[in-house]
Amino acid sequence: MMYGPGDVRVEDRPDPAIHKRTDAIIRLTATCVCGSDLWPYRGQDQVDGPAPMGHEYAGVVEEIGSEVTTVKPGDFVIGSFFASDNTCEICRAGYQSSCIHREPIGAIGTQAEMARIPLADGTLVATPGTPDAGLVPSFLAASDVLGTGWFAAVAAGAGPGKTVAVVGDGAVGLLGVLAAAQLGAERIIALSRHEPRQQLALQYGATDIVTERGDQGVARIKELTNGYGAHSIIEAVGTQESMMQAIRSARPGGHVGYVGVAHDVALPGDELFFSAVHLHGGPAPVRRFLPELIDLIWQRTIDPGKVFDLKLPLDDAAAAYQAMDERRAIKALLQP
Amino acid sequence: MMYGPGDVRVEDRPDPAIHKRTDAIIRLTATCVCGSDLWPYRGQDQVDGPAPMGHEYAGVVEEIGSEVTTVKPGDFVIGSFFASDNTCEICRAGYQSSCIHREPIGAIGTQAEMARIPLADGTLVATPGTPDAGLVPSFLAASDVLGTGWFAAVAAGAGPGKTVAVVGDGAVGLLGVLAAAQLGAERIIALSRHEPRQQLALQYGATDIVTERGDQGVARIKELTNGYGAHSIIEAVGTQESMMQAIRSARPGGHVGYVGVAHDVALPGDELFFSAVHLHGGPAPVRRFLPELIDLIWQRTIDPGKVFDLKLPLDDAAAAYQAMDERRAIKALLQP
Repeated sequence: MMYGPGDVRVEDRPDPAIHKRTDAIIRLTATCVCGSDLWPYRGQDQVDGPAPMGHEYAGVVEEIGSEVTTVKPGDFVIGSFFASDNTCEICRAGYQSSCIHREPIGAIGTQAEMARIPLADGTLVATPGTPDAGLVPSFLAASDVLGTGWFAAVAAGAGPGKTVAVVGDGAVGLLGVLAAAQLGAERIIALSRHEPRQQLALQYGATDIVTERGDQGVARIKELTNGYGAHSIIEAVGTQESMMQAIRSARPGGHVGYVGVAHDVALPGDELFFSAVHLHGGPAPVRRFLPELIDLIWQRTIDPGKVFDLKLPLDDAAAAYQAMDERRAIKALLQP
Repeated sequence: MMYGPGDVRVEDRPDPAIHKRTDAIIRLTATCVCGSDLWPYRGQDQVDGPAPMGHEYAGVVEEIGSEVTTVKPGDFVIGSFFASDNTCEICRAGYQSSCIHREPIGAIGTQAEMARIPLADGTLVATPGTPDAGLVPSFLAASDVLGTGWFAAVAAGAGPGKTVAVVGDGAVGLLGVLAAAQLGAERIIALSRHEPRQQLALQYGATDIVTERGDQGVARIKELTNGYGAHSIIEAVGTQESMMQAIRSARPGGHVGYVGVAHDVALPGDELFFSAVHLHGGPAPVRRFLPELIDLIWQRTIDPGKVFDLKLPLDDAAAAYQAMDERRAIKALLQP
């Protein structure tokens, strides 16, 4: 529970119960702290505390409502940070995070032992079997940061023959690198000045590391791309500076996929107009990619779980927030 | 020549000459006034007058530089408002209006009897033969407003099964309707409260007319699309209001193709983020579409020239500006 900026407490709450016939109750195997949880933690978003926290989850179904048919008790499941019906026109077009019946999981809070997941049929995807403990961090990553980085790479048009630049070296940016590599990008430029993150970016498929930021970062990317700019930019920060850096680093006709939750951003219309970029992003429709991502993890083709460089018991949630806030950890996994 | 806001004069100037071996000199058959020429005319863009005006042109090649190979004297040709080499990586990707060697034709001025066109091989496209006089307005439209409306429709993802809404009932918006229809859109909603423009929109393939603006316009489009919003929005105005109306009228995952030259526009990052739209636009790479558009006009499949509802001798250029400024004319053709 977040009581206010910098004030996270672990406390006993009543067990969740089925409210609607489409709900499921899951027992969390693992959960974690998101970069976006740091906005209220830092007082940059308002908190009406005490507020339940957490929207990433992987765990085992305990109980299902009477209308749930696609998952059953005992299944190991993963879902996204928005519950979605997966049947409306918006969902069917692949934008489940904008489902007309969506419910934010963050309001329920999955930094917990158990959680109620609405619209279970549309939201949850079961793994082929109970995963080895070693795969759990990767499945947890699929719930948000992997799915979000993947969406950003797709929105940025990453693929064969493309040069992709990644603005932001948090978990989402790093998994954007992984996604771009999986999608076949020819060259992947990671912007990072943090050595451990640079190393992980290289493991995930980055071909170049750029340490410059802002205008210098833009100039360096142009230099690496014959003056044209990159074809594809993944933006995974959400500030004015990072958005403008992303737009300016793209060549005309290039694609910017932006998934950093926008904070105090105002895009100047004239610069955007003459940049001639494609701009697409928003809350990632992670559900669209879950079946594919689960398969890649199950087959051990990808290892997104490496972004969890800190693992703590759920009871130490406050320490997990602190470590991420101080950038001592890329991402903290919590074990209930 | 524009001397200042509201002050357009026709005067004698020296004939243009070949400056570079890649130039061509054309004798204009027809030219016209663009909606974007009204920004300086209204004092909304600065004019360092006396400045040559005009960037739309169709005419006959008079003379070519020694390196020009794709057009020859006597050819009837059309080009776009940016000269482009059509060989750089940006051009080859279809973004000729951002060519690394681009030159703005507006700085040369085609509201004239003759004009020098740089990079003639990359810029000019010849028609299959000398067109009938009746086809000239349509070929002139291809130079900018048709190509721009077409690009907007492509950027908006207009096509079979799609509902397209068009914000802006100027020549570009109306030709965006035509383009959407040609691209196979299922439903085309034109926003207009001007009866003659509504009529032309219907002739060009609009299926619905919406007269409401701003939030009411958005609400009406949602009403017409089961609450989801349109799949595709063509934005052809360039103001804060029109851009926000376009973004808000699109469904999540939908596409906004924007070609109105942005004036005092700042897009709020958070609203854009949660809209989950695709945003693409800028100065239209008309050159990409010219061969196809010329063919459609030559075959008399489309008649974009109808947007010219006023035809005047070049000597009456001042009256042409005035008529468009007062919205008495959709678009004024000038005959040298």
